[in-house]
Amino acid sequence: MPAYATNMRLKFPIVALVLEIVTIILFALFVVYDDGKHHGGHGAKPNETHHEAGPMDLYPMFQDVHVMIFIGFGFLMTFLKRYGFSSVGINLLLAAFGLQWGLLLQNFWHLEDGKIKVSIFKIINADFSTATVLISFGAVLGKTSPLQLLIMTLLEITIFSINEHLVANILEANDVGASMIIHAYGAYFGLAVARVLYRPGLRNGHENDGSVYHSDLFAMIGTVFLWMFWPSFNSAIADPGLTQLTAVINTYLSLASCVLSAYAISSLVEHKGKLDMVHIQNATLAGGVAVGTCADMDIGPFGAMLIGLVAGIISTLGFKYLSPILASNLGIQDTCGVHNLHGMPGILGGLAGIVAVALGKKEGHASMQAAALASSLAFAVAGGVITGLIMKLPFLGQPPDQNCFDDAIYWEVPEEEEENEESLAHADHSKNKAEA
Amino acid sequence: MPAYATNMRLKFPIVALVLEIVTIILFALFVVYDDGKHHGGHGAKPNETHHEAGPMDLYPMFQDVHVMIFIGFGFLMTFLKRYGFSSVGINLLLAAFGLQWGLLLQNFWHLEDGKIKVSIFKIINADFSTATVLISFGAVLGKTSPLQLLIMTLLEITIFSINEHLVANILEANDVGASMIIHAYGAYFGLAVARVLYRPGLRNGHENDGSVYHSDLFAMIGTVFLWMFWPSFNSAIADPGLTQLTAVINTYLSLASCVLSAYAISSLVEHKGKLDMVHIQNATLAGGVAVGTCADMDIGPFGAMLIGLVAGIISTLGFKYLSPILASNLGIQDTCGVHNLHGMPGILGGLAGIVAVALGKKEGHASMQAAALASSLAFAVAGGVITGLIMKLPFLGQPPDQNCFDDAIYWEVPEEEEENEESLAHADHSKNKAEA
Amino acid sequence: MPAYATNMRLKFPIVALVLEIVTIILFALFVVYDDGKHHGGHGAKPNETHHEAGPMDLYPMFQDVHVMIFIGFGFLMTFLKRYGFSSVGINLLLAAFGLQWGLLLQNFWHLEDGKIKVSIFKIINADFSTATVLISFGAVLGKTSPLQLLIMTLLEITIFSINEHLVANILEANDVGASMIIHAYGAYFGLAVARVLYRPGLRNGHENDGSVYHSDLFAMIGTVFLWMFWPSFNSAIADPGLTQLTAVINTYLSLASCVLSAYAISSLVEHKGKLDMVHIQNATLAGGVAVGTCADMDIGPFGAMLIGLVAGIISTLGFKYLSPILASNLGIQDTCGVHNLHGMPGILGGLAGIVAVALGKKEGHASMQAAALASSLAFAVAGGVITGLIMKLPFLGQPPDQNCFDDAIYWEVPEEEEENEESLAHADHSKNKAEA
Repeated sequence: MPAYATNMRLKFPIVALVLEIVTIILFALFVVYDDGKHHGGHGAKPNETHHEAGPMDLYPMFQDVHVMIFIGFGFLMTFLKRYGFSSVGINLLLAAFGLQWGLLLQNFWHLEDGKIKVSIFKIINADFSTATVLISFGAVLGKTSPLQLLIMTLLEITIFSINEHLVANILEANDVGASMIIHAYGAYFGLAVARVLYRPGLRNGHENDGSVYHSDLFAMIGTVFLWMFWPSFNSAIADPGLTQLTAVINTYLSLASCVLSAYAISSLVEHKGKLDMVHIQNATLAGGVAVGTCADMDIGPFGAMLIGLVAGIISTLGFKYLSPILASNLGIQDTCGVHNLHGMPGILGGLAGIVAVALGKKEGHASMQAAALASSLAFAVAGGVITGLIMKLPFLGQPPDQNCFDDAIYWEVPEEEEENEESLAHADHSKNKAEA
Repeated sequence: MPAYATNMRLKFPIVALVLEIVTIILFALFVVYDDGKHHGGHGAKPNETHHEAGPMDLYPMFQDVHVMIFIGFGFLMTFLKRYGFSSVGINLLLAAFGLQWGLLLQNFWHLEDGKIKVSIFKIINADFSTATVLISFGAVLGKTSPLQLLIMTLLEITIFSINEHLVANILEANDVGASMIIHAYGAYFGLAVARVLYRPGLRNGHENDGSVYHSDLFAMIGTVFLWMFWPSFNSAIADPGLTQLTAVINTYLSLASCVLSAYAISSLVEHKGKLDMVHIQNATLAGGVAVGTCADMDIGPFGAMLIGLVAGIISTLGFKYLSPILASNLGIQDTCGVHNLHGMPGILGGLAGIVAVALGKKEGHASMQAAALASSLAFAVAGGVITGLIMKLPFLGQPPDQNCFDDAIYWEVPEEEEENEESLAHADHSKNKAEA
Repeated sequence: MPAYATNMRLKFPIVALVLEIVTIILFALFVVYDDGKHHGGHGAKPNETHHEAGPMDLYPMFQDVHVMIFIGFGFLMTFLKRYGFSSVGINLLLAAFGLQWGLLLQNFWHLEDGKIKVSIFKIINADFSTATVLISFGAVLGKTSPLQLLIMTLLEITIFSINEHLVANILEANDVGASMIIHAYGAYFGLAVARVLYRPGLRNGHENDGSVYHSDLFAMIGTVFLWMFWPSFNSAIADPGLTQLTAVINTYLSLASCVLSAYAISSLVEHKGKLDMVHIQNATLAGGVAVGTCADMDIGPFGAMLIGLVAGIISTLGFKYLSPILASNLGIQDTCGVHNLHGMPGILGGLAGIVAVALGKKEGHASMQAAALASSLAFAVAGGVITGLIMKLPFLGQPPDQNCFDDAIYWEVPEEEEENEESLAHADHSKNKAEA
């Protein structure tokens, strides 16, 4: 397989270390600790004051978001039977680099005395910026090298920072829970990359592109932590006090309602009324995505629940009916179905935000909300296509089709995998049975 | 099997969606965001003020409780070898519906201007109300359909709300950590349901009613998260300040002490002095249950540790000696042994509360404490029997004996299970070995 | 095997119960709830005031540390294929006893009115004291009985309390994140014990001293929770406000930087540039250890990142090259490689602290920092040797070589293990395959 330079030795370490060292130099030049003397200057609402009280007030919220990024996204993707090391491990790598890069790029727009003053508020936003990459990672999961993904992280967060600045500071649109600038952006960016990296050889599936019993349970760790802490995600950068409370309550209720509709539709569309783990792991979260833009608005508890109800229905139907069509007709092979969890619910969230602002549920202009949604989608698709083309460069080490969805190509894998990796042996126990 | 209508298609989706839509309508009529203008009016102590400071002060406590409900209870029940999807997944479903229903039912007793004003305090209580259902779920785990369990959730939380109102507002009894109104109530409710649903066919056990190595590790995720965050459970609705601190410290110490006695007794009663995972997963938590009623009382740190010590002993002995007797002599098949984790320790907690109040450790009347314990047990048994009879209705889709403890009857299960589900094939690897 | 008294019946329960009852008696004599009237008197800085605001202010930080102790350390050690019950379960046992013992021993040095007044600050420190034991546990994992480990807990925390008092109150050295007094101390204590318990019979490895695919994923739960909450560990007892913020930011950035270097070096030194789970599970955390002493100092964000970068490199190289040498040449069999995660990074942290204090990044004397490091190492080695010799007493039930790394010797293990435990059968599925 001469076209596949999957040996990462030298090139992966060099790129990783160079990126880190360049980042450290930039931090040495530009980044200092928050001294508590400034206010304002964050992404969503540059002119408001935040953390009026102590500098640590937002810390519990930050830790909730942190858990979503590292445990939530990481374990959610462990559903694949032989790709758990990559799911959790590469998730950690990308987020660890991404948060440093995001902290720089998000804040270059509004330096204070030529410096970025790091606060809890800013590291929450840095964590947020990595979420875009982790969503896109889901679309290309199993089909990309760690090196490709590091490059994607660099580019996706850079482009994200431009769109975020445009949406928050130029358009002054509302997007407290980031339905548009994180979820829709991350999903369509990832789908564009997946389209560019289209693999005809996987048209008929791949034996490792599926779960086993235990891998589905590991994935539920991710699902449940995302589900529980989503109120923190949607409210962390809301205005303190009752507005933040509103964001918590709307998200809590939207997610609860979404669970009921996701379970109902899963049972309705499946063989004999059974529940499908793919739906449960993902569509139960769509309510958190879809209520994001409106989370801090006065939409009423029942309004949040309606949004969640619809999101759960759309998302489950998307997994069942739309994903196969995207793969077969449009060449978009979306491993985790991010279109159903982040894409459509993200757009739904953007649309709900337009309506809510038009109805006066929060100060703003509906047209600016619409422009923010359009901008997020445009940056996503254009950015994703360009990034995908760069990721195609052969020396970035994309795996051949037969090694997709298999940790063994980039990881030392214990036991029988080692002795037999050329023939793609799997520790998959059902196979053992068959062989026996 | 004409008597078993286990196909959930149509009836499960219809019930789930109808329940959710009715709930949304009730929310539209009755539920608004907290506006910070009122104080008082919660379950335990209606006349005191709470959250005097910011509306988000209790949020970290809420998130701890949230983790206990969704990760703690969910994963604790994954110990069964082929029932992990249901344990985590149905736990999520029941809690997501239950918290909405609980928010309505708990607060219908004291509307403000005809409305329920949702605060963090109220969503903590809503989460609490679901704990009763999740405890009862443990008693009937593996032997009930999702539809039966949704009905149980509806009824159990409704009855819970009546008893809670009686205990907190009429009797004015202390039960800050809810040993009586949640743990004892949930356990005896579930045991009553289990008695009504008694299955003679499972008298000699079931091959799937047991753990495998990895399922016991998944269960430990649940155990440890419950263990760690129990101080939040017992202190979340305590009076702010030093009283809340007392509740944290008592629970922290009771649990630590309980671990030592649970391990000691497990080793003492087992073959060759070995430790048994069933005891470790469950009895180590009994100290949290048993100190619940007294948690905010001035019982002294050593008093809390004594309660924990006794709870660990009683609980472990219950698993070893009492559960088999309940099953064989009384027809109470208690899958998770909730009698040992929540039932007896809950009663111990109620009794400790009577003694502590009698000794003046907290304002109150010992007789009211006793009445609260009696009321909780009476509502549990009566409510459980009625609910069990309703759950027996054939169209609710209870599984036949041979499909008990098996996800495959209500879930799409990956791999070999699918091809062979009629004969109840299992991915259980030891079995593969035997067959080989 | 007459020399191995591995049957724990009677002696384990007796020791566990006696320890707990003695502890309860000491608590009855000395421990009361905090009354909010005192200030000062904690380990690190006895004369400063803390928690000026409410008594619950540090509670979220406490819960983060609690998760690190019980989930983080517990699951990190589940990487062994047949030792997960012991890893999580004995971790819980030791920490539950250790926190009670630590609360007593740490505070006997500065009683207030003859009493220890328990606050959140003090239970954070109690949790910290258990970390030393859990680190040492990693060095001897799989080769010790629960009874030996209980004795180790008793002795290690006692000796820790002496060194902590010396470092914090006599030398008045800075060690906010405890690189020296917890990490270096715990590591070298454990290595000294491991040396004393040297097993020539394990020189050529043991078939169970390795991971399987799923056990590596369980271990990642531990890794990621440790990684996420380490900023809380390093900042929990820092001075409130901006100093605490500094500790959070330094740790957050050091850990992020460390991930990049650990991944880079892992790929560089491994076969075909693959990543090795041992490195990822452990070396990614070295940045948290190494920045501990300096965490609350004005070293600049880039300074923290440099420390993390170096720590990730040293730690990964240690796993690859140094651990095998320690085992073969010095007879130090370090199961989890604590020397690489806690030992060397702990010393690096201590050295960084000396330099930072010398450069005026925080008040203090560089010589006192150096003395603190030397003291921590001396107490560790001397304490570890003495403790190891005591642990060798035959009736403490150390397992024979062939039963090392196997839960079945001290635990009831489900399924095929039971029927066949004499011959050390394993549920290890690859083995099933081979046998088939």
